[in-house]
Amino acid sequence: MRDKALASSRGWAIVESLTTEVGPRLAGTEADIRAVAWAQELLQSSNFDRVWTEPVSIPVWRRHHEQARVVSPYPQPLRITALGYSGSTDGEMTAEVIGFPSMKAFKQADADTVAGKIVFINRKMERHKQGAGYPPVSRMRYTVVPAAKEKGAKAALIRSVGTDSHRFPHTGASVRSDNPFPTAALSAPDADQLQRMLDRGVPVRLALDIRVSERAEGITHNVIAQLNGRENPEEIVLIGAHLDSWDLGTGALDDGAGVAITTAAAELISQLEQRPRRSIRLVLFGNEEQGLWGAKAYAKQHADELARHVIASESDFGAGLVWRFDSANPDLMSTAMTALAALNIEQGKKPSSGGPDIGPLQQQGVPVFRLQQDGSDYFDYHHTADDTLDKIDPEKLQQNIAAWSVVTWLAAELPSVKRTANE
Amino acid sequence: MRDKALASSRGWAIVESLTTEVGPRLAGTEADIRAVAWAQELLQSSNFDRVWTEPVSIPVWRRHHEQARVVSPYPQPLRITALGYSGSTDGEMTAEVIGFPSMKAFKQADADTVAGKIVFINRKMERHKQGAGYPPVSRMRYTVVPAAKEKGAKAALIRSVGTDSHRFPHTGASVRSDNPFPTAALSAPDADQLQRMLDRGVPVRLALDIRVSERAEGITHNVIAQLNGRENPEEIVLIGAHLDSWDLGTGALDDGAGVAITTAAAELISQLEQRPRRSIRLVLFGNEEQGLWGAKAYAKQHADELARHVIASESDFGAGLVWRFDSANPDLMSTAMTALAALNIEQGKKPSSGGPDIGPLQQQGVPVFRLQQDGSDYFDYHHTADDTLDKIDPEKLQQNIAAWSVVTWLAAELPSVKRTANE
Repeated sequence: MRDKALASSRGWAIVESLTTEVGPRLAGTEADIRAVAWAQELLQSSNFDRVWTEPVSIPVWRRHHEQARVVSPYPQPLRITALGYSGSTDGEMTAEVIGFPSMKAFKQADADTVAGKIVFINRKMERHKQGAGYPPVSRMRYTVVPAAKEKGAKAALIRSVGTDSHRFPHTGASVRSDNPFPTAALSAPDADQLQRMLDRGVPVRLALDIRVSERAEGITHNVIAQLNGRENPEEIVLIGAHLDSWDLGTGALDDGAGVAITTAAAELISQLEQRPRRSIRLVLFGNEEQGLWGAKAYAKQHADELARHVIASESDFGAGLVWRFDSANPDLMSTAMTALAALNIEQGKKPSSGGPDIGPLQQQGVPVFRLQQDGSDYFDYHHTADDTLDKIDPEKLQQNIAAWSVVTWLAAELPSVKRTANE
Repeated sequence: MRDKALASSRGWAIVESLTTEVGPRLAGTEADIRAVAWAQELLQSSNFDRVWTEPVSIPVWRRHHEQARVVSPYPQPLRITALGYSGSTDGEMTAEVIGFPSMKAFKQADADTVAGKIVFINRKMERHKQGAGYPPVSRMRYTVVPAAKEKGAKAALIRSVGTDSHRFPHTGASVRSDNPFPTAALSAPDADQLQRMLDRGVPVRLALDIRVSERAEGITHNVIAQLNGRENPEEIVLIGAHLDSWDLGTGALDDGAGVAITTAAAELISQLEQRPRRSIRLVLFGNEEQGLWGAKAYAKQHADELARHVIASESDFGAGLVWRFDSANPDLMSTAMTALAALNIEQGKKPSSGGPDIGPLQQQGVPVFRLQQDGSDYFDYHHTADDTLDKIDPEKLQQNIAAWSVVTWLAAELPSVKRTANE
């Protein structure tokens, strides 16, 4: 199965189809409806025993227009993108900018110095194989809003949460509120440019024009496929990815790759002569990007059977090579490693997370595993217009699928994989 | 002087100031007026014997709005940028796309198959240290327009002339005409995306919305500074760069770097105890980008003294390391090489060009030299929004300035550098 995965172009065909034929697929939009139909058709055409969808109620936030320019002293455009749940400006809004190197510095600032201004937080993210630079900086997308409102700022700008130096601003969810606040990210070169202006010690005035909309009553779907277990069909091994993407790129790395990896792995298992002992459930989650809406809905809708979810994992970190397998189950670990070592995958440890959409399940006691990918360049593209198919290496995708097929099959087959053994 | 250059941050300060305080500076716009004022102030604050400007009459083309989207079968936005002198569409214009791998294939196509459609030429540019991949592909920007008009197309799209795979479309001049034609470039990932759709064999319809304007009677300026020669002030060594940039980036590599390199080199020479034998004239050309307008005006305005221009060269290929010195003068070559070898610069040959703005002078018989830069990644950024200061390495800039100061001083000092010796 592993070697079949390494020789197959199936994973590439899946992500090529999704990114080309659907493209950007912001949850709740017309493109998202096409993504759900695309996923249903994909899964129905494979060898699954059952394919179904489950509705997820969501607010539908949309980006219509976003523009920023320096009014004085050095007139020129700056590249921004609104963060998810940002509010609109009332037409073009002009104000002076006040800059801070970190949220900590901003929180200590006198409200008097901030009121009526556009606040700008210029904190850099560090590059790291496992994305360790992300959490401390991405938090800013949320924390800047209440602090900016409290001090009377007119809008908030942050340096993009990303590791590249290209003029792609990185979007991402911010705070949802009944009183939305204009909040946007500058690309790294634009953040540097604004900082150079501020460093000259003269007042810098910006004009921001952000037009977004939000509709409270929207819907998306989790798309689910199952291979029924041979002996214990009530026991579930859950693997998945998220189907939605941000609206800027075509969602190739985030998370078309994960859709391709987990779907192709499940398909390989479905082609074996017999089904594994337990059921394998593939979940393509809806609206991960704006707050794990599909994942939370799944955990709620399946509360009764979560005790029978023996293990779960999501692929949502791009298409880099898997380099480590993390599991708390010693039998799964040792058995898997006999096949994974040839894929240059190291033995790992107890995983702290099984992926964003697995969080709500893990909180309910579902054990998780993790196939750790090299995400060194993941945050170069993450949540930008540049997240496109050309950023995926077909051979690395194959290695991922090989690893996922092995671990998923073993998790569904080994007697030792039980809830009690992993908690 | 060479070692002083290697230790000085002056070049960086110049390009930092130009890209930050002026930013994008499309010829004839308000930003271009600020660029000319910036350059005058810069040169007047240095040790030149004379600083002046010369008017250049130009048409002023401007970009106002550009948007493309796939209407069917796979609705999604595509990233485009209008080429210089493109016409506008009449609001949003929708038509089917017909694709060709090259201009040659397009020229052979039946007009019947093209009429009423948007033509798309998807030819890739090859990466090369000296930019040899550029001329055969950049030509497309010009040749596509008459061919598309002749066959009755509604608009022309080309794959960006560039070597990157990021979603930055590359602009550049196209054909100026009394009957302008909507002409734009797709970023490389967007060209690939459109090609994948066309390869599925179903009709692909695009909507294009391009709004540009042109004003016939505009003006820009060549900004000129001179160090008067000690013995033969009437003999001129001309070095320079172009001051204008496209409107998308801040013109750091193209050609803020060249402005910094040649200005800083001339400044170093101006700080020597005595002036060299001949005059050194630094010309910051206006409107290179849209057709060498400043260079042609200079050649015309100085026709009488071109016979006294003993040698000329422009720095307009980014900020990569100089790796070869090209000159047809054996004495200049051998003398310069004693200082250039320590900068890892090889001895070259007779140069074919002294840079774009030197072309009109070379046609009139002015000898040229060339400090060849490594331009391997120049066309990743060229004419895109991503041409920003962070793409310049300060140490490489210093190496350029060291080389230019040495060669420029020798050209102005060596008795052997004469018109007759170089022709």
